[in-house]
Amino acid sequence: MTSLRIALAQLNVTVGDLDGNRRLVEEAIRRAQAWLVDLVVAPELAISGYPPEDLLLKPQFVQANLDAMSWLTPMARRVVALVGYVDRARDGKLYNAAAVLSGGAQVATYRKQCLPNYGVFDEKRYFASGIGPLVIEAGGVRVGVTICEDLWEEQPIRALAAAGARLVVNLSASPYHAGKLKERERLFALRARRNRVAIAYCNLIGGQDELVFDGASLVLDARGRLVSQGAQFREDFLVVDVLPAHLRPQAGDGASRGARGRVVVVPSVGGERPRLPAQRLRAYPPVEEIYEALTLGVRDYARKNGFSTVVLGLSGGIDSALTACLAADAVGSSRVVGIVMPSRFSSRATQADATAIATALGIERREISIEPMFQAYLQTLAPHFGQRQADVTEQNLQARIRGNLLMALSNKFGWLVLTTGNKSELATGYCTLYGDMAGGFAVIKDVPKTLVYQLARFRNQRGPGSLPAPARFASQSEATGAQAGPIPAGVFTRAPTAELAPHQTDQDTLPPYDLLDRIVKAYVEEDRSLREILEINRAAPETVARVLRMVDRSEYKRRQGPPGIKITPKAFGKDRRMPITNRYHQGE
Amino acid sequence: MTSLRIALAQLNVTVGDLDGNRRLVEEAIRRAQAWLVDLVVAPELAISGYPPEDLLLKPQFVQANLDAMSWLTPMARRVVALVGYVDRARDGKLYNAAAVLSGGAQVATYRKQCLPNYGVFDEKRYFASGIGPLVIEAGGVRVGVTICEDLWEEQPIRALAAAGARLVVNLSASPYHAGKLKERERLFALRARRNRVAIAYCNLIGGQDELVFDGASLVLDARGRLVSQGAQFREDFLVVDVLPAHLRPQAGDGASRGARGRVVVVPSVGGERPRLPAQRLRAYPPVEEIYEALTLGVRDYARKNGFSTVVLGLSGGIDSALTACLAADAVGSSRVVGIVMPSRFSSRATQADATAIATALGIERREISIEPMFQAYLQTLAPHFGQRQADVTEQNLQARIRGNLLMALSNKFGWLVLTTGNKSELATGYCTLYGDMAGGFAVIKDVPKTLVYQLARFRNQRGPGSLPAPARFASQSEATGAQAGPIPAGVFTRAPTAELAPHQTDQDTLPPYDLLDRIVKAYVEEDRSLREILEINRAAPETVARVLRMVDRSEYKRRQGPPGIKITPKAFGKDRRMPITNRYHQGE
Repeated sequence: MTSLRIALAQLNVTVGDLDGNRRLVEEAIRRAQAWLVDLVVAPELAISGYPPEDLLLKPQFVQANLDAMSWLTPMARRVVALVGYVDRARDGKLYNAAAVLSGGAQVATYRKQCLPNYGVFDEKRYFASGIGPLVIEAGGVRVGVTICEDLWEEQPIRALAAAGARLVVNLSASPYHAGKLKERERLFALRARRNRVAIAYCNLIGGQDELVFDGASLVLDARGRLVSQGAQFREDFLVVDVLPAHLRPQAGDGASRGARGRVVVVPSVGGERPRLPAQRLRAYPPVEEIYEALTLGVRDYARKNGFSTVVLGLSGGIDSALTACLAADAVGSSRVVGIVMPSRFSSRATQADATAIATALGIERREISIEPMFQAYLQTLAPHFGQRQADVTEQNLQARIRGNLLMALSNKFGWLVLTTGNKSELATGYCTLYGDMAGGFAVIKDVPKTLVYQLARFRNQRGPGSLPAPARFASQSEATGAQAGPIPAGVFTRAPTAELAPHQTDQDTLPPYDLLDRIVKAYVEEDRSLREILEINRAAPETVARVLRMVDRSEYKRRQGPPGIKITPKAFGKDRRMPITNRYHQGE
Repeated sequence: MTSLRIALAQLNVTVGDLDGNRRLVEEAIRRAQAWLVDLVVAPELAISGYPPEDLLLKPQFVQANLDAMSWLTPMARRVVALVGYVDRARDGKLYNAAAVLSGGAQVATYRKQCLPNYGVFDEKRYFASGIGPLVIEAGGVRVGVTICEDLWEEQPIRALAAAGARLVVNLSASPYHAGKLKERERLFALRARRNRVAIAYCNLIGGQDELVFDGASLVLDARGRLVSQGAQFREDFLVVDVLPAHLRPQAGDGASRGARGRVVVVPSVGGERPRLPAQRLRAYPPVEEIYEALTLGVRDYARKNGFSTVVLGLSGGIDSALTACLAADAVGSSRVVGIVMPSRFSSRATQADATAIATALGIERREISIEPMFQAYLQTLAPHFGQRQADVTEQNLQARIRGNLLMALSNKFGWLVLTTGNKSELATGYCTLYGDMAGGFAVIKDVPKTLVYQLARFRNQRGPGSLPAPARFASQSEATGAQAGPIPAGVFTRAPTAELAPHQTDQDTLPPYDLLDRIVKAYVEEDRSLREILEINRAAPETVARVLRMVDRSEYKRRQGPPGIKITPKAFGKDRRMPITNRYHQGE
């Protein structure tokens, strides 16, 4: 063997877009052929998009995906292509599969063995488990095929190593959460080292409803060392020369002798090719990585659902400020509209800051007072409310008027409404259903308030305007970051307030956010008990109990909230499926 | 053997209410002992409630369920009790299990083998599959234990028959949909006949979020013939004497000789007991059965979530009329408030009918005009909308004002808002997000419009008032049913209209409802293709294509709608998990 040239096609496919996805794979195949690649790899379920969810229950959808594969197959002539698609057996069972295309034909099929059915995953709802490994041999190198979860488990790669594989390819659709990249790198390095096989991991990129796929494909040698890596959060086409030095030495015929199972021999391009440099990238610092994930999530939700303009309410608070920055960076400031909606409780300071943010970002700003509607509701409801005290009802009315105004603009102009609520609010129900929760996409719904501040500070360090200016990073102040960026200092220093009642602040209702966010993480993301939370946090038991009660009791609100981007190990949504009718309460 | 007396405790447990559920099971055990029962059966996961969903990911919840079992165990002294609970193995794996309690101890445990992971079910998300059968022997009769899905598959009962079981007990939590009762009876009769075993099936009853469990427990003899049956939609305690004639003859010691696996011998009460009569019930006619399911669903959602009063908008249309009847029958007319919310587009006829319905049902009626708010919105938005024509925006505004008013009353008085939208509307998106979709529970969200009319006619036949009067059935007119019942004739004969624009009717936008409902059933419930739908329906291809497009494009609305009661084989909600971002469209 001289070298095996592989290409990892890190594609941004769209769920259900069978023609579009097929074309993306075709283009990758053409490109691979131009680069004299031996083996090109597309991500898991590249043809259908991931996750196709209940589209898989439509026989005509599965058939259309098979038709797309038939169309694609003859395109792979001078390269071997591994393409993720939905395979259907004669008995009608479906498999999450990888087709091996070679010489214009599908020469083999691998069926995913380990089907994730936890967290956001429901693969056992749709797929049967494949049985046994698939090994192909290209240019004298045995290559094992795996799909996503197969590599997170121990068994499949062990079986492949036993079957003589020296390189294991993995087609993935691995959703992002903060810290997952490192988790993957560590785990795959371990798998490579333990089994003495090189690994070539090809991950999807792009946003799909609540998920962001972050790409960051990679090639590791048989000692688990990084050979080359794909970009994170961007499409990429990573061409890598796998050299003999990257693989464990071939033990003569010995390796094959002990091998079990069928080995499919495929042609390789071979011959002398100028060696390609490895690709190494600057890793994003943690906060920037999350910022990039959110940007991609917004951009793809808008684009893939056909929205050219987004609209959001600008309150002058930190949440809407950050959301505006993310929106502008995602779709461009000319396609973002910020609506300032003052009431009798709005302060001059917040209104001025809202305007300053819009100006700094260069987005359109409109002002619509909610007072006429608020007045009308109060007068109309007065005979029904009688002598009752003002309470959360009147606060919700204001939030709902704002929601209605944004939705009216959305309806009239075809804009996508972005909501601005964060995870701390959504967890505790400190938000108004049909009010600030009204909209198509909840950008920061999985971002705890303390992280909202960090993201806002990071964004300010990038400077004004809506285009990232990484070259200017070093020169920015770390202190509040407020001078250079679009978000005024007051937004960082002012006590958080919903401005729905006189002199209101969030901390009238909630504990301080640093404590709250620790409780929410422990309870929601880690499923810890009241007692465990008290053991790891210095907090009054009644405070913690009250937060847990708030979390439990606002499940009905979350159920009706819009989708938003998952960035933590456990987001609200498909990730956390709690009953609404539920009498189990830790906080009582 | 003289006879084996079994009791099927058809309980209405609540998810998460570990103490309350344990008490219900205890009461069943005490009652069984008083009735000299040999074997009392509680439903599947009776301790945790079903489905507990992600509560199962909380170790403290699973522990609390085990603690409840420990508390319960000593109560079963003079009876053998089979109780559904969550079992946790030493390795931490969870099982959907049945405890066999006898002599104050847990003498055996059965772990469910077949885990449903389709439709509304996610059991593979939580549970590992049990391995192998459990047979207990009571009073000389071998009794096999199964849990729900185990009996829907063929293998477990076959294994039990081979192990010498002559009676198979099934602990179930089987959600209702129209026609399922017959499906169950047919299937279980087949299983009994084929394997020559009697079957005692104990099902949960009650509402849990989107699901209604309908009870209708039953005992079949070894020829598949009905011996006794439990009530549908009501708690019941079915005591049945299983006689030698109900079982296949015992083949001396032969049966046991061939038996595989462990057999746990438990005591039986034995002795002479006066024989009990079998319970046979009038089967509900199809429409009445659905009416009962909906009533139970509303009652339990309100009760289990702590609402004493419900509120809904009364438009004078058939949907809100039916919902008002269901609400009054579910929680009592004194706890239902109907809000009439006229606008410039409301007709005298609909407003008069709305009032007539409230009067006939004896529910509180309030009137709140939406005009002041509508005016305020229109004036406020005029500078932004400029010369644009009035369109769906102005219609949505009216619906959203109504939604806000209902939510304001809900917030101020703690009432549960019931929404009144039907499945035909929800399927096509002919409804307003945050408008008529705003509320806590969507009573008829799974009821197609044509069935709404049938249910309303049925309800009218019951006569006025909010209490069912089955004795009067026969004397009611079948024609329109409009005279005697609470819903005026005009509601049935008037062309359906949202009254959000001048001279508007639903059929300006939608095809006739009888056609629409057939298309929706074929597309949504049966996943049929455009071509298949055209093959079985006489309809213009562009009409069908337009409906499919409407269904596809309103996924984002449904995602944010409130939960409501499943009554068809496939409801919107957990049953149908479609991506929002989705470019696969049949109608294009």
